[in-house]
Amino acid sequence: MAFKVPDDITLCLNEDRGREFLERIWNKKAAYCCVIGNTETAKIPGVSAAGADPAATDFTPAADMELLYFGRCKCIDGVPITPSGIPTPGIITMSALKLAPMPIFVVNGGVRVRPHVPCIDVDGTAGDDIRTGKAVKGAEKAYDRALVAGRQLAKMVDYLVVGESIPGGTTTALGVLTALGYDASGKVASTFPVNPHELKAQVVAEGIAASGLSPEALKNDAMAAVQAVGDPMMAPAAGLIAGAAESIPVLMAGGTQMAAVLAIIRSMDDTVLDNLALGTTRWITEDKTSDLRGIVSQIGNVPVMAANLNFSLSRYDGLQVYETGLVKEGVGAGGSAIAAMAATGGKVTCRSLLDEIEKNYTRLVSRR
Amino acid sequence: MAFKVPDDITLCLNEDRGREFLERIWNKKAAYCCVIGNTETAKIPGVSAAGADPAATDFTPAADMELLYFGRCKCIDGVPITPSGIPTPGIITMSALKLAPMPIFVVNGGVRVRPHVPCIDVDGTAGDDIRTGKAVKGAEKAYDRALVAGRQLAKMVDYLVVGESIPGGTTTALGVLTALGYDASGKVASTFPVNPHELKAQVVAEGIAASGLSPEALKNDAMAAVQAVGDPMMAPAAGLIAGAAESIPVLMAGGTQMAAVLAIIRSMDDTVLDNLALGTTRWITEDKTSDLRGIVSQIGNVPVMAANLNFSLSRYDGLQVYETGLVKEGVGAGGSAIAAMAATGGKVTCRSLLDEIEKNYTRLVSRR
Repeated sequence: MAFKVPDDITLCLNEDRGREFLERIWNKKAAYCCVIGNTETAKIPGVSAAGADPAATDFTPAADMELLYFGRCKCIDGVPITPSGIPTPGIITMSALKLAPMPIFVVNGGVRVRPHVPCIDVDGTAGDDIRTGKAVKGAEKAYDRALVAGRQLAKMVDYLVVGESIPGGTTTALGVLTALGYDASGKVASTFPVNPHELKAQVVAEGIAASGLSPEALKNDAMAAVQAVGDPMMAPAAGLIAGAAESIPVLMAGGTQMAAVLAIIRSMDDTVLDNLALGTTRWITEDKTSDLRGIVSQIGNVPVMAANLNFSLSRYDGLQVYETGLVKEGVGAGGSAIAAMAATGGKVTCRSLLDEIEKNYTRLVSRR
Repeated sequence: MAFKVPDDITLCLNEDRGREFLERIWNKKAAYCCVIGNTETAKIPGVSAAGADPAATDFTPAADMELLYFGRCKCIDGVPITPSGIPTPGIITMSALKLAPMPIFVVNGGVRVRPHVPCIDVDGTAGDDIRTGKAVKGAEKAYDRALVAGRQLAKMVDYLVVGESIPGGTTTALGVLTALGYDASGKVASTFPVNPHELKAQVVAEGIAASGLSPEALKNDAMAAVQAVGDPMMAPAAGLIAGAAESIPVLMAGGTQMAAVLAIIRSMDDTVLDNLALGTTRWITEDKTSDLRGIVSQIGNVPVMAANLNFSLSRYDGLQVYETGLVKEGVGAGGSAIAAMAATGGKVTCRSLLDEIEKNYTRLVSRR
């Protein structure tokens, strides 16, 4: 009998491969990994909403990881919020991992604030503003370390789910995609409902110019592209995914930032692409201000799928507002929702997930 | 049919529990973890042979880890050696992991030299000379981080093997065992054939005095004992083991250093002791200059078992010399040998392991 994709997951690109991928991971055992980092790029006014204000974005990845492990943050009070007070998509991931428990690993690509959790260290450091053209140090080292870690994890589970948490990451995604020669203009997503494409394009153009590298030099060396205009999440995420995907399927949990990671993987080792899929949220795949499919289709035949999360009927304004296009994705929210459905053979649904999210929202946000 | 312990493993203490433990892990899936650290205590002349000279001991843990992952060291030429040129017991571990591959994880308790491998970071720092009485910082934080990591790993494998690499570790073991009120006088092992018990006792006495803590204060607070006269491997090793042993068996791979870790675990959470065993080498359990059984029997009903490694018939002087009591144990050599036998249902033997060790010895040492 052919595998039936549940209504709560929409195949959005390379559908046949997406169906196959889902069949391979259905009812299988996964581990969830999150690669975290900070980049000064997030502090350019107007770039990121992943923190109450630009300085607060330093704490967002660390706080997200504490939320996953402990159900609450330790390095900040409450949870990470946007400037308008909307809670982190980490609440979605945390709720998914609660309904379908799996081992959690954090890879520290380079953060300013360390989470109160164990981290797989890849000798990375926090990233600079990409307008310097020298945003990241030691990308290849981080890639290599993470590659080794991915291979170890692959020996222990059937598949891996890899998310990210790095404020400002869609701007650096535009940077690396552009540097690698893809047309990502106007296509990367944003935590804001109104996508500041012009600002991002200007920041990226400035960074590429400052790098002093020719378009050819950037295009042919993914690590150079990351070091010029990327962020410290990218190389270790690419290494971790590539190392695991040598032997097991990997669900890349994210939107256009993960598309940039996919582009890096293609440059580093295109033999693993068959083991990859992108899993994100409906808010990304239905977003009119970005174009995930338009990016991925330039990179390879990798399936894109979305968890049909819908908060329009939520009891809470702070969740309903996700339907207006604020936040959209992060901390592997969409992919972890898909993984929770897969791990439970479809017992977890977008509806049961929203119930769990609301429970956690009550506890963490509305009572504060 | 009762489980038959192979001739290549000797049960040395709490034999019935040892047999049960082996039966539980036989043919099961394991991960190997190594907790590494550095302590200035190793540089006290005469304390440690885990490096060509005291300064070289900084590199030993990092080099050992590279050996496990890559089959060769990266941060040094060749492999770690004793002052007389005898190679690290990491060659035994590496060979065991080659014959019975399992995922490898490194926990960085606090090192001076970082290995070229991914490390699980627990926010530890390298340790001071225990004569300061303030040898370790943030022991409880490292314990907590590692506890979380141990719980994650336990979700992915049937059992865990945990070794250590920290030069000077038997002196700090004496320190913590003494601080916790155990009689370890003349009982801890040594990398030297002639065990410098008097020197160690003097160093420990000095450290305990300098700590300014009363015997009661030390005895009742394992983390205070570690911070006073321990090393940065101990707290994360104890946390990692305790976290995993909440749900799965853990083979503590080591000699008297692991006995000190066991004493810490007993203080922190004695409900997990039933899931623990100590696995070491025949060179430790037959050592006349130390008394592992005498220590463990004071702590709890935890089984001790030894891999009957015997290098007396080796073609190489550098391996034969292990029979004179040099080195004896380290990097979880004995426990990883036992785990290799268990993982292969006894197909790996001390004989086949010696063949593999000699092969690696040829490649790494004799041709240099």
